[in-house]
Amino acid sequence: MSGRLAVVGLGPGDARWLTPEADAALAAADALYGYGPYLDRVASRGGQTRHASDNREEGARAAAALRHAAEGASVAVVSGGDPGVFAMAAAVCEEVDAGPEAWRALDITVVPGVTAMLAVAAHVGAPLGHDFCALSLSDNLKPWDLIERRLDAAAGAGFVIALYNPVSRARPWQLGTAFERLRRQLPASTPVVFGRAVGRTDEHIAVTTLATADPTAADMATLIIVGSAATRAIARPGRPPLVYTPRAIQSVSP
Amino acid sequence: MSGRLAVVGLGPGDARWLTPEADAALAAADALYGYGPYLDRVASRGGQTRHASDNREEGARAAAALRHAAEGASVAVVSGGDPGVFAMAAAVCEEVDAGPEAWRALDITVVPGVTAMLAVAAHVGAPLGHDFCALSLSDNLKPWDLIERRLDAAAGAGFVIALYNPVSRARPWQLGTAFERLRRQLPASTPVVFGRAVGRTDEHIAVTTLATADPTAADMATLIIVGSAATRAIARPGRPPLVYTPRAIQSVSP
Repeated sequence: MSGRLAVVGLGPGDARWLTPEADAALAAADALYGYGPYLDRVASRGGQTRHASDNREEGARAAAALRHAAEGASVAVVSGGDPGVFAMAAAVCEEVDAGPEAWRALDITVVPGVTAMLAVAAHVGAPLGHDFCALSLSDNLKPWDLIERRLDAAAGAGFVIALYNPVSRARPWQLGTAFERLRRQLPASTPVVFGRAVGRTDEHIAVTTLATADPTAADMATLIIVGSAATRAIARPGRPPLVYTPRAIQSVSP
Repeated sequence: MSGRLAVVGLGPGDARWLTPEADAALAAADALYGYGPYLDRVASRGGQTRHASDNREEGARAAAALRHAAEGASVAVVSGGDPGVFAMAAAVCEEVDAGPEAWRALDITVVPGVTAMLAVAAHVGAPLGHDFCALSLSDNLKPWDLIERRLDAAAGAGFVIALYNPVSRARPWQLGTAFERLRRQLPASTPVVFGRAVGRTDEHIAVTTLATADPTAADMATLIIVGSAATRAIARPGRPPLVYTPRAIQSVSP
């Protein structure tokens, strides 16, 4: 009997962003695998087993889920946001690539979700309305000099930059160094958005500028968007500014 | 009386990706504005007016919706995919920026959605599992030399590249030129994904390589993902390949 494995994106925050497809995939599973706080967001259903693991154990979690599916079970691996963006879908593919031939015969599906940068962008306006990139600031999985090279390339070519994994207890200095790097190329007035816990009851979104952006204001639950030279903030009476990047650009900048 | 305007992302394709928040925002609207085919995807509800316009009239549509909201109405502007990615949220912000002061007092919200690149990525594996960028290939709103500069910067720094708006009747040569440009920097074997009409009944997804990628295989409904030098395709018996980009990279490449 051939098993099934679905990698399911819950979206960030609460159930408002859980798609019908994701809900159906969760309901159809015999077993749920995931980081504990993500599993806690999935409604309880009878007859399902739950397998929580730490957020630094993606590879081991993916392998355990694949083994379970290979026994004939229907397994769901849950991910916050979108599972394809710095998350479990790539971890599952890595294990399939390195694992036994039988895993390639499994019915593997990925259920997309709203990723954090889209939710943070929505809550401030449209900073991702023009060309943009998504960059993980974690140097656990790649060398720091490559991250700096990517920051330089993205800012120099005029991409808006969404920074995932900006900081952790073990990575305290990276975000400040990244802001310093970006200040070499981008105007001091470039809008910077700190989006913490987007979609949760403790959501906190702050709009600042590259000149004043304080790296200590970010934590593990924060997604940061650094504008391009074209990104603008519209002041509004009694409301937070609308931050957006115009669709059109007439000249090569910066 | 102060009106409300919500820019609502429907996700790509059918209702499987319509979030509960988007559904609620559509239900709460007095009036719906959008490109005709997107409006056609919204369930009919009594007491709502519908205002369809052409897909090249985003600015005029946004202004009409803002005028209507400023009269006190609750207006929803619908967008395919995510409204913040090359879509209506930026168009609305542009009109607010250039428009009458009263528009800044409106209650404007953006409801995020699954954007096409996430859905196409999900249906082939996890090609966006490492750093990536999203680039519109339309030179209607920016000069072609800037697009080439961004292609060079992204490929050179190792970003996976999602190409929106790869081709239209008025832009027949741009995608082929972009592939040529990318071939200068990326290996011939780099996986390229053509995702057409993702999530619709006529969805067609094809995985090829940069060497053999045929620009004439794309149309206006196609989203293209060009891998980095690290992106891999896992062959599977009786199934399409799994395309993914590993989370870890050990050395600076290409």
